[in-house]
Amino acid sequence: MILLNCDIGESFGAWTMGLDEAVMPLIDCANIACGFHAGDPSTLRQTVALAASHGVRIGAHPAYPDLVGFGRRSMACSAQEVEDLLHYQIGALQGICTAQGARVEYVKPHGALYNDMMAKPEVLRAVLSAMARYQAGLPLMVLAMRDNQPALGLAAEYGVPLWFEAFADRGYEADGALVSRRLPGAVHHDTEAVVAQALTLANGGNLRARDGSELRLRADTLCVHGDNAASVAAVRRIRDALRQAAQ
Amino acid sequence: MILLNCDIGESFGAWTMGLDEAVMPLIDCANIACGFHAGDPSTLRQTVALAASHGVRIGAHPAYPDLVGFGRRSMACSAQEVEDLLHYQIGALQGICTAQGARVEYVKPHGALYNDMMAKPEVLRAVLSAMARYQAGLPLMVLAMRDNQPALGLAAEYGVPLWFEAFADRGYEADGALVSRRLPGAVHHDTEAVVAQALTLANGGNLRARDGSELRLRADTLCVHGDNAASVAAVRRIRDALRQAAQ
Amino acid sequence: MILLNCDIGESFGAWTMGLDEAVMPLIDCANIACGFHAGDPSTLRQTVALAASHGVRIGAHPAYPDLVGFGRRSMACSAQEVEDLLHYQIGALQGICTAQGARVEYVKPHGALYNDMMAKPEVLRAVLSAMARYQAGLPLMVLAMRDNQPALGLAAEYGVPLWFEAFADRGYEADGALVSRRLPGAVHHDTEAVVAQALTLANGGNLRARDGSELRLRADTLCVHGDNAASVAAVRRIRDALRQAAQ
Amino acid sequence: MILLNCDIGESFGAWTMGLDEAVMPLIDCANIACGFHAGDPSTLRQTVALAASHGVRIGAHPAYPDLVGFGRRSMACSAQEVEDLLHYQIGALQGICTAQGARVEYVKPHGALYNDMMAKPEVLRAVLSAMARYQAGLPLMVLAMRDNQPALGLAAEYGVPLWFEAFADRGYEADGALVSRRLPGAVHHDTEAVVAQALTLANGGNLRARDGSELRLRADTLCVHGDNAASVAAVRRIRDALRQAAQ
Repeated sequence: MILLNCDIGESFGAWTMGLDEAVMPLIDCANIACGFHAGDPSTLRQTVALAASHGVRIGAHPAYPDLVGFGRRSMACSAQEVEDLLHYQIGALQGICTAQGARVEYVKPHGALYNDMMAKPEVLRAVLSAMARYQAGLPLMVLAMRDNQPALGLAAEYGVPLWFEAFADRGYEADGALVSRRLPGAVHHDTEAVVAQALTLANGGNLRARDGSELRLRADTLCVHGDNAASVAAVRRIRDALRQAAQ
Repeated sequence: MILLNCDIGESFGAWTMGLDEAVMPLIDCANIACGFHAGDPSTLRQTVALAASHGVRIGAHPAYPDLVGFGRRSMACSAQEVEDLLHYQIGALQGICTAQGARVEYVKPHGALYNDMMAKPEVLRAVLSAMARYQAGLPLMVLAMRDNQPALGLAAEYGVPLWFEAFADRGYEADGALVSRRLPGAVHHDTEAVVAQALTLANGGNLRARDGSELRLRADTLCVHGDNAASVAAVRRIRDALRQAAQ
Repeated sequence: MILLNCDIGESFGAWTMGLDEAVMPLIDCANIACGFHAGDPSTLRQTVALAASHGVRIGAHPAYPDLVGFGRRSMACSAQEVEDLLHYQIGALQGICTAQGARVEYVKPHGALYNDMMAKPEVLRAVLSAMARYQAGLPLMVLAMRDNQPALGLAAEYGVPLWFEAFADRGYEADGALVSRRLPGAVHHDTEAVVAQALTLANGGNLRARDGSELRLRADTLCVHGDNAASVAAVRRIRDALRQAAQ
Repeated sequence: MILLNCDIGESFGAWTMGLDEAVMPLIDCANIACGFHAGDPSTLRQTVALAASHGVRIGAHPAYPDLVGFGRRSMACSAQEVEDLLHYQIGALQGICTAQGARVEYVKPHGALYNDMMAKPEVLRAVLSAMARYQAGLPLMVLAMRDNQPALGLAAEYGVPLWFEAFADRGYEADGALVSRRLPGAVHHDTEAVVAQALTLANGGNLRARDGSELRLRADTLCVHGDNAASVAAVRRIRDALRQAAQ
């Protein structure tokens, strides 16, 4: 069955973000912030404990060092800097995990680092190189595209397994890119439409891209959101629909 | 033979501190800054590589989160916060090590965290608890005192091995505390005196405390410094003297 | 009439804290975070604009450099460091104000710095010295005590006016210190009691301290809170009661 | 006479950078780091005091919030974010200045922010807008180009005076851009050549660009460096040559 992944553990110090306790029981994979865009050591500990208590897989969610920008602003980091900040953040999360008998099972870069990885092969190479050096076989989560061959080809060079993620609540361009949030149709606000797209993605069916063309995506996992009560309710609906369809 | 340990990897970004390349070949144990008082991810990588290339043991040198104060200012962190920041920093360094096939072999808290650990049993307990949770048998480096029983007793509760360190270049109080830098006799500036104290400590002989009393310290390791050319030269002298004495 | 002051502008980057838009119309003095415990440059701009639009006096709310700890953890800063971090933060807020034709009208230290200022004369001296150097006549907000002479005496040495603040929702010790949050009676949860204490403080009446003794405080201003809907509702009640009493 | 400006005050906490005490007596304009790429509050205070003691004009040297990258990595900040971070940093430096009776006399963005300002009109507009809002008539230092009309045109819209700076130690492209440090001829290492270029720039003479073409630059000020003893010696040579030529 297709897995549900969610960015989580994005509180920082006295500031709370997201309904982590509500959404954790509903997901399969927790992309846990590692301290550079969100997540202080104590938040990491609490989030790892929460994930472990629900049997949710723990993924590292590393970012550019931009706390005030929440890791959403692209930074001109060198390939070496990208490798180093990945190792530091994955390790930091693993340190918190180790103290609880847990472990990091995959990596999904956050925000601008994720976008840069998808847009610039040299950034993807840096990420893949970092993954390969860190631990053989550790999977990297990337955006499913119409044509996954470029990403698969690069990943094969480094021996890194890829997990492809898709979005049930976002509109798609013909090539599989997400519709820019500045354009209409970027986000589906109707829960029925979200659930329908989740089922389509889970079944390997065709989506309708913004230009009207059909788009089939390989999706190992769906990215869902625990920001607020409405998004948590949508996750519950998606999860129930997927379970029912799987029976 | 008594080991030489040195705080190292304390550069940050564009700022350089210490003659790491000069002192690394002379020491046995490298206390590597983990990012909270010094050391960015790229500095960690370079320092781990340097240590590995010289066969020097890698220790984590975690600190309070106080970059501008270099971890030298005591902070009123809770026991839980101390545990969490230790796990985060040890893990981050281990992440950098993992990418190079190396590993963290011990932990020595830095600066104000080290001082608070020696002065306040609740801080020492927090450190010991963090060590025990992180990895059974991982040694903690602490200050050798006239009476090590209090520290040994606490450490035994948590099953944490202790490595006792002493200073060849510092004056001692009768109880084994270091003479405050505000007092005369705090630091030995004469290299001959430093070498002599190193040999005394290595041989288990008696030092003369500030009040004139004799002081015998159990020292598994001596803390040396790579700040500048003079201190590196002193390390070389100490090392040569210890080797000669060991023959 | 007694003024209402409120800590505000304590969001940071993507993280929101407090109902600033709801509470700003109800207060007289806005203690605006300056970036060290909360408040990034964009949050400062928005908060200054909000205060200016409601004719609320702008105060600087500087803190120890401890973002992850929200400035609540005491740090062993030197007197010189305290002076420097005050000038930096007051200036930063004034820079944001200058761009909007506004100005900083007073200073209230935050969190652990505020507590240290009230507990340690050397910290109060450092704060007063910083204020005097920065701008003659700029008032400092401090906690009203049974005996304000120590604070007034020190402030007079530096020529710094003091504004005394009291709390309508906190219990008091006999000497005017706030009852520790670890003890019962630290916080009044009943709004009627809060409003009654506000009126008593405004009228210069006697409070009942934790030990049963009577306590009269000189209060130029009451500290109120905009954390959530309940606290904002309490501010509205206090404000209405004070206005009614003043007629 | 053409003025000498120098980036300065770029130490941070325990880390020292540059020979500020040696170069300050030799320059006219001190571009002082404001805390985002370098410079903590205490360093700012010391640097302002040093500048004031030598009668050197104080300029704000604001940067992207990237301490570990020393402000050298471009960040995708919005125009509003650029304005806000400028006001915050200029204000912070002014706060330190105010405590010493000094004032900020101009602004020169640092590193990647400076480069982005020269390369992207929308960034230059954000900087100019910030300057105009902060203080009418406050000058902005920018890179002199073959054609300064685009910058002058934009600056006139905002009423911001421009000070054009040139480099005595850098090679130039035909359009006035600096030769990339990745190319040969980027930096003049021969002091005689540096002094000669300084005199040419001071006299309004023609430089020879990398492609062999002649290049005349309007230079109000030369950017010099205090990084090390050699660069300070070069500053002294430049200064003596300019004084002699001016007699």
